[in-house]
This record gives sequence, C-alpha cells and structure tokens, in this order.
Amino acid sequence: MQRLEKQLALLMELDQLKSVLRRTRVKSAQGRLENSAEHSWHVALMAILMEEHANQPVDIARVVKMLLIHDIVEIDAGDTFVYDVAASAEQEQKERAAAERLFGMLPIEQGQQLLELWLEFESAQSSDAKFSKALDRIIPMLRNYHNQGQSWLEHGVTRQQALTVNQKIEYGSQALWDKAKQIIEDATKNGWLKA
Amino acid sequence: MQRLEKQLALLMELDQLKSVLRRTRVKSAQGRLENSAEHSWHVALMAILMEEHANQPVDIARVVKMLLIHDIVEIDAGDTFVYDVAASAEQEQKERAAAERLFGMLPIEQGQQLLELWLEFESAQSSDAKFSKALDRIIPMLRNYHNQGQSWLEHGVTRQQALTVNQKIEYGSQALWDKAKQIIEDATKNGWLKA
Repeated sequence: MQRLEKQLALLMELDQLKSVLRRTRVKSAQGRLENSAEHSWHVALMAILMEEHANQPVDIARVVKMLLIHDIVEIDAGDTFVYDVAASAEQEQKERAAAERLFGMLPIEQGQQLLELWLEFESAQSSDAKFSKALDRIIPMLRNYHNQGQSWLEHGVTRQQALTVNQKIEYGSQALWDKAKQIIEDATKNGWLKA
Repeated sequence: MQRLEKQLALLMELDQLKSVLRRTRVKSAQGRLENSAEHSWHVALMAILMEEHANQPVDIARVVKMLLIHDIVEIDAGDTFVYDVAASAEQEQKERAAAERLFGMLPIEQGQQLLELWLEFESAQSSDAKFSKALDRIIPMLRNYHNQGQSWLEHGVTRQQALTVNQKIEYGSQALWDKAKQIIEDATKNGWLKA
C-alpha cells in the first residue's frame, strides 16, 4: 500500500475517538458528555494559549502533537476516569496494545516516531511531556468548575482526591498548579467537592 | 486582569465550539452530526500525518495552530455549509467580528498574533495557509465517502459542485487533489454525488 493510503486509513480509523465519552459534560450542548476528540482539540489549543506558563522551555510543536494523539488509544481501550485509580494496571496494557495497533497502520518509520512520542507523553519525564500532562489534568477541573462542579458531584469526588490526583500539575506548571489549588479550595467551599 | 486569567477566560469561552454542528455525521456515534471542535482536532491531526504531501515546504507548527483556531469564529457566526455559496459575503463580516471579539479577550500582543494567523488562513495565500485549506476541504469528502455519501445525498450535491468547490485543494497538495478527484469519480459511480 502507498504511504498516503496508509495515512488515510489511520485518519478514518481515528474518527472513532469522537464516540469515546468522558465524565465531564458540555454545558452549551444540553449537558451531553464530552468526547475525547473534542477534549483533545481543547487541550491542544490550551497548550498554544498557555505556553508561557510552562516551568521549563518547551517545544510547543511537540507538545501540541502529543496532545493531539494522547487519547487515541481510547478507541480500543476506552476512557478511564482520572479518579478511578484501581483501573490503571490492566488499562496500561490495553493502551499500549492500542498504540501499537493504531500507529502500526502508518508507514513504519512514521508510526515508530509517533509511538515514541506517545510513550514520552505517558512516561511524563521530559519537559514537553510534563507540561502536556499538566494541561491534560487541569482542563477537566477548569471545565468542571465552570459547570458548577458537575462531574465531581456526580461521582462524589473529595477535596483530598482532587489534591492528590492533580498534584502532578506542579511538575509541568507552577502557575497552573497554583490556579488548580485555588479552584479546589473554592469548589470545596461551594460544596462541589466533599470536604 | 492577569495574563493567565484572560487566557483561561478565552479557553472556557471556546468550549462552545463543541456545540456548533456541521453537516457530516459521525458513524461510530449513532450518526449524530459532527461538531466543529472534534472536526478541528481531526484536521489538525491530519496535518501531522500528511505533512509530506504539501506542495511546498510548510511550518507544521503554524499549520497545526491555524487548524486548531480556524473554526472558533463559528461560536458567534455559525457554520456555513461549503456548498452554500450564497451565504459567504455576510458570513465573512460576521466571522471577522467574531475573530476580533474572541482573540480580543487575550493579552493584546498574543491576541494580535493569533488574529493575524487566522487572517492568514482565511486569505489562503501563504504555503502554510494553502496546505491548511486543502486539508480542511478534503477531510469532509473523505468522511462522507466513508459514510456512503451521507452528507452529499442529504443535500443533493452534484459531481460538478464537488469538483468546483474542492478544486483549491490543488493549491495546497497535488497528491490530495488527485485523491479527491478519485473520490469524486467513485462517489458519482456509486450514485452518492449526482452525475
């Protein structure tokens, strides 16, 4: 198969990310659940707007690329709620297999490069990955806060859970972690997170 | 207001792009209409996969950035169907005003830079903009073809309309225009586009 045909086949396969649902709702769309494709757009655009708040200099093109691909494994593996810590071991296996299947549809060297970029995001060690992870963690909090705590209330999330799960934002952006702590305290006062 | 607060206010405003509906449907999601946020994700990811098919060398970071912001004006101006040529004059005014309002929420120099990038996309003169426009035109055709011509059939689109409206793909990518022509001929044979 030609390179273009392989790339197009993956592109059409990726359409399915539009039907993977998350736990947060879209207020402007009658409160339906958000899907992982539109989330990926939102967080990639956030990276462009917020580059200056990264702790260390980042290569914004790599950050955006990471964020555009970070959730595609959910096509096979499904979305895991960030507060569901038990699900993580088996999920990691499924996601790795999904990444190999999906990026394996591409011309070999191109698939390998994107697989490595996805693994870099997952391992959260490089400055680009730390900043990407920070954005991916804070954006549902921001959206939840603007939705009067909807997802926290639906799932009974506590202040302590929010602090523990989101603390890693600090590794990517001190400014965004400061904002996250402020959100957590305000949400607790409003009764949206359990004290 | 601090820079971060302005950036966050725009980010939350942009959530509304998830409720702007297009004419193409998402097969994996029970055929609901696609929204402009998930479309923007799909086409930005397409740019990453297809960079090698641009007619001229492109700055992929700029192309991806353009594609992530290209439709945000629809929050105020709504989506225009690509085959609805009559709508375009008034629409252009509305979109310009929307761009000024939305990017105007940012710190001045940041908003100005993104407004200029959006205008560059709209005027379709630079290599980056020509390639971005080519991707934005071909992706609904690819999706329609994979959906057995759904949107063309629903709106009675003809082979000649498809050729005329999409011809500009050629300015950004000869390889993708060759693919587009092949799709148009196949879709016509299948009765999905009127002969």
